[in-house]
Amino acid sequence: MAHRAHNFSAGPAVLPVPVLEEIQRDLLSLPEVAASILEISHRGKPFLRILKQAEADLRALLSIPEDYAVLFLQGGSRLQFSMVPMNLLGEQFPSATYIVTGSWGKYAASEARKEATVEVGWDGQATNFDRLPQSHQLQINPAAGYVHFTSNETIQGVQFAAEPITGNTPLVCDASSDFLSRPIPINKYGLIYACAQKNAGPAGVTVVIIRRDLLERSRNSLPGYLNYKNHVDANSLMNTPPTFAIYALGLVARWLKNEIGGLENMLEQNRMQAQLLYDVLDESVGFYTGHAQPNCRSLMNVTFNLPDDSLTAAFLKEAEKHNLNSLKGHRSVGGIRASIYNAMPTTGVEQLASFMVDFRNKNS
Amino acid sequence: MAHRAHNFSAGPAVLPVPVLEEIQRDLLSLPEVAASILEISHRGKPFLRILKQAEADLRALLSIPEDYAVLFLQGGSRLQFSMVPMNLLGEQFPSATYIVTGSWGKYAASEARKEATVEVGWDGQATNFDRLPQSHQLQINPAAGYVHFTSNETIQGVQFAAEPITGNTPLVCDASSDFLSRPIPINKYGLIYACAQKNAGPAGVTVVIIRRDLLERSRNSLPGYLNYKNHVDANSLMNTPPTFAIYALGLVARWLKNEIGGLENMLEQNRMQAQLLYDVLDESVGFYTGHAQPNCRSLMNVTFNLPDDSLTAAFLKEAEKHNLNSLKGHRSVGGIRASIYNAMPTTGVEQLASFMVDFRNKNS
Repeated sequence: MAHRAHNFSAGPAVLPVPVLEEIQRDLLSLPEVAASILEISHRGKPFLRILKQAEADLRALLSIPEDYAVLFLQGGSRLQFSMVPMNLLGEQFPSATYIVTGSWGKYAASEARKEATVEVGWDGQATNFDRLPQSHQLQINPAAGYVHFTSNETIQGVQFAAEPITGNTPLVCDASSDFLSRPIPINKYGLIYACAQKNAGPAGVTVVIIRRDLLERSRNSLPGYLNYKNHVDANSLMNTPPTFAIYALGLVARWLKNEIGGLENMLEQNRMQAQLLYDVLDESVGFYTGHAQPNCRSLMNVTFNLPDDSLTAAFLKEAEKHNLNSLKGHRSVGGIRASIYNAMPTTGVEQLASFMVDFRNKNS
Repeated sequence: MAHRAHNFSAGPAVLPVPVLEEIQRDLLSLPEVAASILEISHRGKPFLRILKQAEADLRALLSIPEDYAVLFLQGGSRLQFSMVPMNLLGEQFPSATYIVTGSWGKYAASEARKEATVEVGWDGQATNFDRLPQSHQLQINPAAGYVHFTSNETIQGVQFAAEPITGNTPLVCDASSDFLSRPIPINKYGLIYACAQKNAGPAGVTVVIIRRDLLERSRNSLPGYLNYKNHVDANSLMNTPPTFAIYALGLVARWLKNEIGGLENMLEQNRMQAQLLYDVLDESVGFYTGHAQPNCRSLMNVTFNLPDDSLTAAFLKEAEKHNLNSLKGHRSVGGIRASIYNAMPTTGVEQLASFMVDFRNKNS
């Protein structure tokens, strides 16, 4: 049996062991295909079946209605930061509203500014992105082409529990770090995008879910790969898609459906696991200080600080000895970040919680 | 042992078995990492080692000088069709010359037209792209920002044996389907791009080799992901790169270095294998008709027709019974296409050649 530590990486991140085992088993030859998933044409029947099944499972998990298209693209959320305004803005809609609740929202807005006018509907920078706006605090231009928000900020660890209320303007969401971690009401959205490497699969594929009427906004003059309409018309096969990453994402989706039993169950498990860690913070009498305000804590990325840098360093070193890896926080927040995506087993979170209690007892 | 057929797919295509076996062995846990390659951060030491080694091995194989940067991007050659003109053209260089020798060159030119002025320096459409230009036939505008050509046309099966002579204008090459199949004199090029899924690895990563002085042309106003300068500055880590595809490409590069012994040896093997098939065409007294003129035949994609469609269908059906798969030609050329990239074992080509002789004997 391969040695595997508990992996709290913010992404690429832990994947379900049964998914890894299936990839491993079939790596030299997919059943009845006589070639590896890495070697088969994206236009041949075996891959077309995989692509169709992955889309069907995503549609089932998220109850995606037929008037939304599902795309499998490359370039990560970073390319979406540009594609969204390039496709959805233009003469008819010259501006968009961005709700900036963390590092990723800030990057998204700064790329959009190269393409069109960006109006910031709320900005959490002043308190280092430790909180989220309430809907009445938002300044939404009703003529905006869309309102953009980031459902979960991976670096700061703040997460919207529900969609912000923004009127009739299409809602665009960067859901990269909580996609497939919970059910969401798709019909509240105009467009959702998410890179896979948190909850949904390995790095290299980005899912885009777009309401079909919005495709009318995409101009033919856009660079071909950046035009959503081209990808919808070609069913994600405009050019060679990232076949392996789509295959792996499909296996994760099937695991969510069949092993977990759907996104309601996944959310319940994620809530329970996050609570284990937040309880340790709250009971630590100030030894562990959470970065996010309690009412907007992320179920995905638990961010906190220790009393000083030398204790943080000791925490990370001791944690690795206990097989608890990749816990270092992002430099803009510091301290510790425990990313506990879908595939993190409860036992991993329990071991981390117990380690945290022990570490505090020894060092406070 | 997994059942594997001989796979003549045009891409994604056959990979070396030792590479597949190493991926399989370590799929649950990379040695000394305690996590799968699919699960580790792109900013952690284990992946940084993999990235550095992949670049070093590419530099060694192709003798890439230090004044060229090597990038690992997403989006395939299709995205390069846009990125090349977006980065290299502008006020200073408003036009580029495209040498159009097949379907891919045509696509490249049509994307470039959205960004700038395209002058066609030669076009093989009139003879359905069955031949290549000689250098004196090219019409190159000396003021062009670059000259673009496609070293191997995957669909038509025509391949430049050497770089076209184009004066001092920077040469840009779509080398997608013969990258790493032979040595090339890098210093003749301004920029080379290649998606990996032919000779270099699985789908999902695109290699770009760019002469550093050309980076000065990239404007800051470009969408962030589309700006080569950003990727060079961030050493391909501007955002999460396709980590698994880079890992697999690195294993292929190491196999080329250590098992094959470098690109001179690879070229020799590719020449020998292609000759086996072209000999069968030439000796078939018109039963098999090659699409490409003999002086520009591809060593990668051997394209030919049979006397009629029913014989073509029978050929494909019989071939599959002999474990010779994915031989159907592209609809624009018809007939048969045998793609014999680096990882195609000689025994696979021998079996195909022998099958072709038998099939002709039975059916002519």
